[in-house]
Amino acid sequence: MRFLAFEAQGAKGLAVAEGEGTYHGLTETDPAFPGDLEALIRAGLPPAAIAALQAGPEIDPAAVRVALPLRRPGKILCVGLNYAAHAKESGHEIPKVPTVFGRFASGLIASGEGLVRPRVSELFDYEAELAVVIGKAGRDIPKERALEHVAGYTIFNDGSVRDWQLATPQWTVGKNFDGTGALGPVLVTPDELPPGASGLHLQLRLNGEVLQDTKTDDLIFGVADLIAFLSTAMTLEPGDIIATGTPSGVGGARKPQVWLQPGDICEVEIEGIGILSNPVVQQE
Amino acid sequence: MRFLAFEAQGAKGLAVAEGEGTYHGLTETDPAFPGDLEALIRAGLPPAAIAALQAGPEIDPAAVRVALPLRRPGKILCVGLNYAAHAKESGHEIPKVPTVFGRFASGLIASGEGLVRPRVSELFDYEAELAVVIGKAGRDIPKERALEHVAGYTIFNDGSVRDWQLATPQWTVGKNFDGTGALGPVLVTPDELPPGASGLHLQLRLNGEVLQDTKTDDLIFGVADLIAFLSTAMTLEPGDIIATGTPSGVGGARKPQVWLQPGDICEVEIEGIGILSNPVVQQE
Repeated sequence: MRFLAFEAQGAKGLAVAEGEGTYHGLTETDPAFPGDLEALIRAGLPPAAIAALQAGPEIDPAAVRVALPLRRPGKILCVGLNYAAHAKESGHEIPKVPTVFGRFASGLIASGEGLVRPRVSELFDYEAELAVVIGKAGRDIPKERALEHVAGYTIFNDGSVRDWQLATPQWTVGKNFDGTGALGPVLVTPDELPPGASGLHLQLRLNGEVLQDTKTDDLIFGVADLIAFLSTAMTLEPGDIIATGTPSGVGGARKPQVWLQPGDICEVEIEGIGILSNPVVQQE
Repeated sequence: MRFLAFEAQGAKGLAVAEGEGTYHGLTETDPAFPGDLEALIRAGLPPAAIAALQAGPEIDPAAVRVALPLRRPGKILCVGLNYAAHAKESGHEIPKVPTVFGRFASGLIASGEGLVRPRVSELFDYEAELAVVIGKAGRDIPKERALEHVAGYTIFNDGSVRDWQLATPQWTVGKNFDGTGALGPVLVTPDELPPGASGLHLQLRLNGEVLQDTKTDDLIFGVADLIAFLSTAMTLEPGDIIATGTPSGVGGARKPQVWLQPGDICEVEIEGIGILSNPVVQQE
């Protein structure tokens, strides 16, 4: 299944589709609305809730305003340096342990919304990533059971303000500017993808030009590795997000460098999931 | 005013006191309960809500189970290396820009609850800190108006699993183990403290022995600096927390080193705010 959160006439909506089928859904103004995707994930995607959405009218994804699949994720755990060629282009060794930084929900935008180039920097960069959404809570999750904790997969563009990111030993501030983390457009459940969403083609296009291009099986630490590792430290909770890291080809490492400019269109496509597309806008 | 969140017979409660006066409050089972502290902060601490609490019965802080002042903070922005002597003992230069990492609500515990020494490490350390709670949302907040955005101050013990923290370039995982971030016991509004909570005596005691001892005016970046800096990047929202950093004397930098052991009692006291006290327990 694939879930599409949207807004229509100011009301929150949620639609569901099977595979390449049409979306059907409801908005919160309908008494049968089963709740938003966070609530459904916490409840384990109950069949009755999905049936309620499927009984709703057809929803044309191109005709609604796409919303964040998860509006207020509790944790957004971002893995850095998780493709060998990207670690190298960033001047780092191939990591033996996942490098993780945090992002917060306040910086997220949905597909279609503007990636905001801040006033204080001209070094605004993109990072195409596979994102994992946790479905079932767990701590100390063994790797061989890790994928049972996944609710689904989506796409993340980990927009980065490079000078702010690299001004101090910790990257957090440059990774948390308002309007720089694009997430979506849909959540795809694991049954529609290879185990661990491995082997999928991932591509970033800036104004149509391919600037990042990899397959997700090039991840140094795959989805199951990351869930096992992170849950050794902390309880992963339903709706938490793990952004698995970006491949080589980021703007700051290119020669010449490429920085996002107002008017650009930045698209991230992952095979079997969809296209996350955002225009770049200037902070006013 | 000072606010104390608590639990009684499984119900959430909130109490308020003026200065050194007695606490009066209500639990959510009372129809007059005005909401938890997050809700009151979002509403701007409305006088009617405070009056409702003051009309409730007297609450003895020693007789209730203290709860987290904020149960699910949206952002927990932790500043590293923000006292000169601590930057030095950690092998860093005096920073020119605040170094920030993120913590998530899933790792927090209230005063009185166990600081959990994890199974996977013996290098469990304490860090005494002044914490700021944001009251009024803002972006690009000028330093001279920054303190208007503060709802109050509390105490943070930024428990750190040092080998995990330092295993990679980013500290996030070692800073987010379950049960390692102690927050509380109370929120004190700015009118009861010096501007920016500056000049307060801050002390950490382990089993009664003083291991960290400073005044908050030794902060390299004070509260107003931090609010101005962080809000250049991101919108600060009501209930967000800024942990301002720890002074010198952390366990890992001592000779000989001191690591938290099950059965230890770790207390952080800040003048005018209170004492955050936690026993150390072993992860089962």
